[in-house]
Amino acid sequence: MKSQHIHKVAVIGASGYAGGELVSILMRHPKVQLALITSSEKAGSRLESVHPHLRGLSDLEFAPHPGSNAAELLSDIDIVFLAVPHGVSMKIVPTLPSHVKVIDLTGDFRLSDPRQFEKYYGCKHDAMQHQSQFVYGLTEVNRLRIGAARYVANPGCFATAIQLALYPLIKHDVIEGTIIIDAKTGSSGSGHTPGEATHHPSRSSGFCAYKPFSHQHLAEIEQLVAEHQVRPLGEVILQTHSAPMVRGIFATLYLKMREEFGSAALREFFTASYGVAPFIRYVPGSPNVSWVKHTNFVDIGWAFSGHHLIVYSALDNLVKGAAGAAVQNMNLMLGLDETLALLSVGGYPS
Amino acid sequence: MKSQHIHKVAVIGASGYAGGELVSILMRHPKVQLALITSSEKAGSRLESVHPHLRGLSDLEFAPHPGSNAAELLSDIDIVFLAVPHGVSMKIVPTLPSHVKVIDLTGDFRLSDPRQFEKYYGCKHDAMQHQSQFVYGLTEVNRLRIGAARYVANPGCFATAIQLALYPLIKHDVIEGTIIIDAKTGSSGSGHTPGEATHHPSRSSGFCAYKPFSHQHLAEIEQLVAEHQVRPLGEVILQTHSAPMVRGIFATLYLKMREEFGSAALREFFTASYGVAPFIRYVPGSPNVSWVKHTNFVDIGWAFSGHHLIVYSALDNLVKGAAGAAVQNMNLMLGLDETLALLSVGGYPS
Amino acid sequence: MKSQHIHKVAVIGASGYAGGELVSILMRHPKVQLALITSSEKAGSRLESVHPHLRGLSDLEFAPHPGSNAAELLSDIDIVFLAVPHGVSMKIVPTLPSHVKVIDLTGDFRLSDPRQFEKYYGCKHDAMQHQSQFVYGLTEVNRLRIGAARYVANPGCFATAIQLALYPLIKHDVIEGTIIIDAKTGSSGSGHTPGEATHHPSRSSGFCAYKPFSHQHLAEIEQLVAEHQVRPLGEVILQTHSAPMVRGIFATLYLKMREEFGSAALREFFTASYGVAPFIRYVPGSPNVSWVKHTNFVDIGWAFSGHHLIVYSALDNLVKGAAGAAVQNMNLMLGLDETLALLSVGGYPS
Amino acid sequence: MKSQHIHKVAVIGASGYAGGELVSILMRHPKVQLALITSSEKAGSRLESVHPHLRGLSDLEFAPHPGSNAAELLSDIDIVFLAVPHGVSMKIVPTLPSHVKVIDLTGDFRLSDPRQFEKYYGCKHDAMQHQSQFVYGLTEVNRLRIGAARYVANPGCFATAIQLALYPLIKHDVIEGTIIIDAKTGSSGSGHTPGEATHHPSRSSGFCAYKPFSHQHLAEIEQLVAEHQVRPLGEVILQTHSAPMVRGIFATLYLKMREEFGSAALREFFTASYGVAPFIRYVPGSPNVSWVKHTNFVDIGWAFSGHHLIVYSALDNLVKGAAGAAVQNMNLMLGLDETLALLSVGGYPS
Repeated sequence: MKSQHIHKVAVIGASGYAGGELVSILMRHPKVQLALITSSEKAGSRLESVHPHLRGLSDLEFAPHPGSNAAELLSDIDIVFLAVPHGVSMKIVPTLPSHVKVIDLTGDFRLSDPRQFEKYYGCKHDAMQHQSQFVYGLTEVNRLRIGAARYVANPGCFATAIQLALYPLIKHDVIEGTIIIDAKTGSSGSGHTPGEATHHPSRSSGFCAYKPFSHQHLAEIEQLVAEHQVRPLGEVILQTHSAPMVRGIFATLYLKMREEFGSAALREFFTASYGVAPFIRYVPGSPNVSWVKHTNFVDIGWAFSGHHLIVYSALDNLVKGAAGAAVQNMNLMLGLDETLALLSVGGYPS
Repeated sequence: MKSQHIHKVAVIGASGYAGGELVSILMRHPKVQLALITSSEKAGSRLESVHPHLRGLSDLEFAPHPGSNAAELLSDIDIVFLAVPHGVSMKIVPTLPSHVKVIDLTGDFRLSDPRQFEKYYGCKHDAMQHQSQFVYGLTEVNRLRIGAARYVANPGCFATAIQLALYPLIKHDVIEGTIIIDAKTGSSGSGHTPGEATHHPSRSSGFCAYKPFSHQHLAEIEQLVAEHQVRPLGEVILQTHSAPMVRGIFATLYLKMREEFGSAALREFFTASYGVAPFIRYVPGSPNVSWVKHTNFVDIGWAFSGHHLIVYSALDNLVKGAAGAAVQNMNLMLGLDETLALLSVGGYPS
Repeated sequence: MKSQHIHKVAVIGASGYAGGELVSILMRHPKVQLALITSSEKAGSRLESVHPHLRGLSDLEFAPHPGSNAAELLSDIDIVFLAVPHGVSMKIVPTLPSHVKVIDLTGDFRLSDPRQFEKYYGCKHDAMQHQSQFVYGLTEVNRLRIGAARYVANPGCFATAIQLALYPLIKHDVIEGTIIIDAKTGSSGSGHTPGEATHHPSRSSGFCAYKPFSHQHLAEIEQLVAEHQVRPLGEVILQTHSAPMVRGIFATLYLKMREEFGSAALREFFTASYGVAPFIRYVPGSPNVSWVKHTNFVDIGWAFSGHHLIVYSALDNLVKGAAGAAVQNMNLMLGLDETLALLSVGGYPS
Repeated sequence: MKSQHIHKVAVIGASGYAGGELVSILMRHPKVQLALITSSEKAGSRLESVHPHLRGLSDLEFAPHPGSNAAELLSDIDIVFLAVPHGVSMKIVPTLPSHVKVIDLTGDFRLSDPRQFEKYYGCKHDAMQHQSQFVYGLTEVNRLRIGAARYVANPGCFATAIQLALYPLIKHDVIEGTIIIDAKTGSSGSGHTPGEATHHPSRSSGFCAYKPFSHQHLAEIEQLVAEHQVRPLGEVILQTHSAPMVRGIFATLYLKMREEFGSAALREFFTASYGVAPFIRYVPGSPNVSWVKHTNFVDIGWAFSGHHLIVYSALDNLVKGAAGAAVQNMNLMLGLDETLALLSVGGYPS
């Protein structure tokens, strides 16, 4: 029986924050064995030297990334997660043996248009021939396709928060005109390498905007809008902000409704679009980052006045915005219960 | 000579955060003597029992609020600051002796339309007959009128950040359509009384929206727009958010330009509107709350793409958003240098 | 077979932080059904109205605390957790039906000497006749007795961190003289009711000491020392501090060794005392609160110079310092694997 | 008259946090002109490119550090502050022209014993021949000598907090035996260069110990004890900790009194030792970092039980622990009021 099988998984790029979150989720997964973790910089080190919270839970050591030895190294691996920096997945994917399924957490294979990739990521794409094999891993929108996929491109953290707030309204032709999105993120989104933007003395009481009109996740959002809009919508304006918190994304979407829909109708658009979606929660009024921190939930709420609609979306950028969604996709790809290993919540207060 | 004179000032309601900030600024002011501080709850206590950072700097004790003894109590006072809760100033103002000048930090006298007051503050106005005597204390817009005023209604913290970002664009007829404002505030804006929204365990990693379409500072902004717009503009949408920081407001304004103005033109609209304004700073790109914390500066920046304009505004809600602006107004009302006691900056990093 | 049985549990006082943590752990426990949650203030409310992070995970509502209906209310309950305020457990324990096992998270039944209780808790004890039935729930010290117990008094959060650092050294007669303990805690230790000490604006950048020589957990520590010392030791000095973090305790113990033991010998004292202890981790140098946050681990390290020994101990006050330890004890009382439901770790970074 | 004179000052190494704090204090100083700021890395940049909070307040640009051009570069400078990294001052001091007075904020000239310097700083001292000319700049202890000094070695931040708590007790022969000090610091003490220990995601909820028995400020403390003890005292044990705050030091000293002195006697030891000391404040019970943040105060309190005495000391590491104390010393060296430019306090809440 399929569900008795223990699947072997590898995390390529396990030394970053998303990689560490993947490891900690996969270690408690009842149907999976975490068989391989790799790191370019930390090869040879023990897991806890990089992720000290995981001390005592595993004897794993970081191996080097797969290279010419990929076929051998991954011979008994069923699922490969790629949690490497943007631009690295496109080098690795072509080398992977054909029996493995792949979940890529980078931006390398999310966009079908290579010009968009170049525009937003600032570099040429090396392996565009593989892109069409990838299913965009926005679980609640592409659940069936993900279940059947061999390659999944996991969405960006901002993109997940925003798209899940937007998709039902686009699909049901509820809105018109320009879509304005004000999004805020915690410092863990910048990764585990120290830098000016994440220096504790200045970040702790700082708040600023960055990448106006140009954050790379905007390309994913535009792609989703283009794919699902019933009638042409206006531009999507995205302004991202750095907030003085560690985990969490909070997106505020400013929309114009074609008609003055009320709360019941709005909820109906969402539930009709998502059906049974165990990780989407509808909240009265505004969600709060503190409620979703360390969980795989995305909490969605709204307010309106006349034709003006504000939709709120909150999630944990490392869980639902990265590692949690990746495991949710893995569960589907393996025919398992979508929620396996993902219902643990112990984050509040935090 | 006027500037040799030491003016006596009173802070009515000195036990809150804005009151404490007023006291600390006034204590270092070279032309002012802080002669009276009052508090309804802390009457009889020494200053440092409420504001422990001011220990050793003063022998002041809190007196009760002025009542029937106002004429006597304030007989040698030149300037009265009202830093009481909303709704209390309207009780006190009618009792004040005619020789004092008044700077009110509450929302009681900011709005000329009593229906707007009722709508946004949820209560009847008791003393509307005094409102027309008040000058709205947005210094950089009403500098001359403030200098000549006896009564000044100090603007709200969100209103200051937003209006200073918006005024030059309205005045110069730069924008059209709906004005969308996404504003974020620190916890000190909720005052010194503990409550659920400022409980450290949940606030520290929380981020949420509150008061959609209905924050009381919206009324001030709408009033300013109505007063200064060249052609009718669209609605003003204001969504306020609670950020996990203590001090600071960051406002992001999403605007549509009538023409595609560039950065030089935009800067020109601002400098033409404000002229010499010692507390407005124009920054390349986004300002940062950490740069203005503990200062009386408002830092303004912008980004644009085609007709889409994003304007950023950051200030310290207790300084430029309250006590600092009040002292700036006092300086003008007393014929002093606008910057007296307000150029100290020691906040970064913080 | 025992392990197939699903045990029914009740959390009396489930609306506080420790109660919420208990609920979230018990909800993911494979051998337990959370059948009843109670609250004096929130009776009638749904779980998520108090613990918004648990929305969507349960249909539980808060019932009132058991009173004269205790026998009926708890008729099919196997385990009762008491997560009520100090002083309330002593009212409830005498009313509980005889078939339930009880894990009390308050300080009511930790101390065998009623004079010590009165001294440290400032009130008379009502139900001292029950105290001798309670086993002190410091798992790693009293594992066997806990497994056989009907009543367990779960230790205080500071007491757990400190005692686990101290016990092996006392038991092996390693130290002499005065024991000095400098302990630091996060704000969640003050509970979910807002107050001055946990007001975000002041707590966020504050650090202070409180309760010198008199914190109530000192009594537990003194009791353990008296019970296990080989030769009389000096006084125990405990100074607790409030740190600007939400979760976590960090204790620094300043000790004098009878002989100059090295690191290997020190480690041997610990491992000989604790044997297989899945939640104790020995770390090189200092542990870090961020490594144990949201986990049931206590991380212990040390440094020494001549006869001077410093021992560090870090844990999450709501998990290993309260709810996690309580579930660990429950697992033992039910004959289950000690680690069930307690190995989930997703806290870093946080 | 001397006090009418405007003194010209230079800050060598003005791009770090202590340098920035110096600049912001000196810019508001009524008797001083900040004529020169230097930086090895930022030479040629404008002040606000490094210290964005100072935008609009000055037209200063960073010059390179003085080298062979020192005599010319500093020809009209009266006071030179050295806010460079440890080890750099010993290179610069020998090159300075003889007319300038020098206040060194590094550790290079604090220790009279070169062996102690080597032991704690891990390198050879190049310019020990200059050390005897330096007065140790602990203002409240060496006020008269500082006033007459040409060279002042400003104390370390931990050293200041600890020594000011300890000195009166040593001088009056109040204590005996081992001196145990548990000290906690904010992240700004690590400087403005990003690193692992100050990475926002991990620092924000972290707490750990570092440098047991070996922090370099211990050498200063031992030197002060040796110099002022009436009878030989025991060892000084110092354990420093990283707290999740930006500014502030909190030191907890565990001491044994020779006799059971009460609070009045303890206070008398302090006031007899310090006399009029405008920046020392005695507080009932524990001070709080949040009360001294952004101020030049050190707040001292105590608690005792029998012979056991706990003394608390709190200060802002960048002000009283560095730049503020340096300006206080400068004021004395120039014959000015000790408090000039140092009484501004606007930090609470923060």
